[in-house]
Amino acid sequence: MTAATIRPRGVLYRWADVLPLTDRTPRITLGEGETPLVRAASLAPECGLDELWFKLEACNPTGSFKDRGMVVAVAKALEAGARAIMCASTGNTSASAAAYAARCGIECYVLVPGGKVAAGKMAQAVAYGARIIEIDGNFDDALRAARELTARHPIALVNSVNPHRIEGQKTAAYEICDALGDAPDLLAIPVGNAGNITAYWKGFRECAERGLAARHPRMCGFQAAGAAPLVSGQPVPNPQTIATAIRIGNPASWNTAIAARDESEGLIEAVTDDDILEAYRLLARREGLFVEPASAASVAGLLKLGRSGRTRGGRAVAILTGHGLKDPDTAISHGTPDVTRAPATIEGIEAALGW
Amino acid sequence: MTAATIRPRGVLYRWADVLPLTDRTPRITLGEGETPLVRAASLAPECGLDELWFKLEACNPTGSFKDRGMVVAVAKALEAGARAIMCASTGNTSASAAAYAARCGIECYVLVPGGKVAAGKMAQAVAYGARIIEIDGNFDDALRAARELTARHPIALVNSVNPHRIEGQKTAAYEICDALGDAPDLLAIPVGNAGNITAYWKGFRECAERGLAARHPRMCGFQAAGAAPLVSGQPVPNPQTIATAIRIGNPASWNTAIAARDESEGLIEAVTDDDILEAYRLLARREGLFVEPASAASVAGLLKLGRSGRTRGGRAVAILTGHGLKDPDTAISHGTPDVTRAPATIEGIEAALGW
Repeated sequence: MTAATIRPRGVLYRWADVLPLTDRTPRITLGEGETPLVRAASLAPECGLDELWFKLEACNPTGSFKDRGMVVAVAKALEAGARAIMCASTGNTSASAAAYAARCGIECYVLVPGGKVAAGKMAQAVAYGARIIEIDGNFDDALRAARELTARHPIALVNSVNPHRIEGQKTAAYEICDALGDAPDLLAIPVGNAGNITAYWKGFRECAERGLAARHPRMCGFQAAGAAPLVSGQPVPNPQTIATAIRIGNPASWNTAIAARDESEGLIEAVTDDDILEAYRLLARREGLFVEPASAASVAGLLKLGRSGRTRGGRAVAILTGHGLKDPDTAISHGTPDVTRAPATIEGIEAALGW
Repeated sequence: MTAATIRPRGVLYRWADVLPLTDRTPRITLGEGETPLVRAASLAPECGLDELWFKLEACNPTGSFKDRGMVVAVAKALEAGARAIMCASTGNTSASAAAYAARCGIECYVLVPGGKVAAGKMAQAVAYGARIIEIDGNFDDALRAARELTARHPIALVNSVNPHRIEGQKTAAYEICDALGDAPDLLAIPVGNAGNITAYWKGFRECAERGLAARHPRMCGFQAAGAAPLVSGQPVPNPQTIATAIRIGNPASWNTAIAARDESEGLIEAVTDDDILEAYRLLARREGLFVEPASAASVAGLLKLGRSGRTRGGRAVAILTGHGLKDPDTAISHGTPDVTRAPATIEGIEAALGW
């Protein structure tokens, strides 16, 4: 058997017929997509649900859902002749962009605000060899500079304003319908810049049109209370939350997120950092799923709905967007380690444990 | 459609017919297995190969290959009536054990040497709620205590001396034969405690017996030079290497590793920490794959064989055992960030970049 007969894995192979690909789009892949959908072991009743499933987007190659959209954005950039890509990001977007750029042998420029970037957060972009540009300004300045620089140079902007990102991210909705045989009754998803809720809603609508689903889910988005512009209805100048991946004050996909909510008869609500940390602990300790804090917002929202009697059975899917190892500091500072010290003898250990 | 008609993902479902399961073995899953097999973008020629593929075991739910064996070990422990599991580990084994224990609502005890454990390394076990017992002794003392305690109490030992671990880990060989339509010519794998090379060889032999492969691969194992007892032929009292996941001086699966080497006409050789770090950088910067240092040993070995003219074409698979986020310190200390500082103006950024 030759390599040509092997079907490679990846979003551009699995979902080619629902993506804007041409014969000239290079079929790149890091093995993204086809992530596990795992049924909840214990949290469904507390959420007022008959069935709860988790979509484990941390199992993508760079550890977050961003890979689904980035593979499309980078493939289309290559097709258009771009020699490099650029993004403003201090987190998951820069990790994913840097990985695909390295894979394809092109440069990746990452614009970050000066003096605000923890080394750990940028570990992936650094490892993949991205060129980091630390500017004398804030995140909004970095994004504005990225937009202007990519307009003036043959460099593709791969922030979520790039529509190919949305196209790639919608494939997770297709996978859910494929695995469950239909769309769920309810989709729970963290909302920051609002590109992902936009992408899922596009995917679910397409699945219904193509006969892959008999219904639409209610789209239930959850923002962190300190960064909840879609709940309050106005931008938040200085957003604050432990869930850094959704710490966004003025979402780029504002209108499409509101449309997803309204068209699906869903909701977008806020959960507090305490709610998020409770869900974060419950996911790890009762489901065996270690996620980054932003991912726990989806489950915090479901717990809130369930406890207030606003969910009445049915099947929900919660999107767990990124890996817990993305943010080890939160794990350590909020993990309350259960450590017993003991001598190295069997009797000593038994005594220390009270056996 | 009801949940009963949905085929869940996971090693106990996908590979039930090749595992020692009974009707009473609980079918637990965190979505482990079915990891991507991704073709190398650029490193095959330098390795003297026609084709090089990477098996991305970092895409398992806890970020390493350990989940494949742990799901079987924990399911069999539950079947046998164990109320808890125990392991001696400061790394990937404890993360995986703690995750499945949390999932199944049983206790996980992790024995670690006193005063030697960095908080970051234990972040996952802490997050999953494991009970950590820090003993006044070294790693060998911890493993000895775990063996004795599990012999005296209804607690299952889930270190790799547990044969169910090997059974689960062998399923990756089945997946490779399934994806490629045959076994590869050569399998490259990091070797520490030697359970994984043992498991892959068992899997490939079974695939040949069952007609899933027409041939066996040459098993090529690579140890870190400072922890290479299978190369030198004698235990290493004080093993040293940056690749902490294979820093083992006296491998538990010594004899079966040697058998895998000899029966497959393969080899087990050493690679230096410099070799490992070079492969670690090349994987990230030319393939877009960010792995823990131990994983890079497999590619360091292939580069060594290729550069010395000892490989002549053919198809190889390299096992990438764990995620780069498992060890952010190495990424930061060896990543040599490429950072340019600039004012927030377009002209300022262009000037700083020399455009």
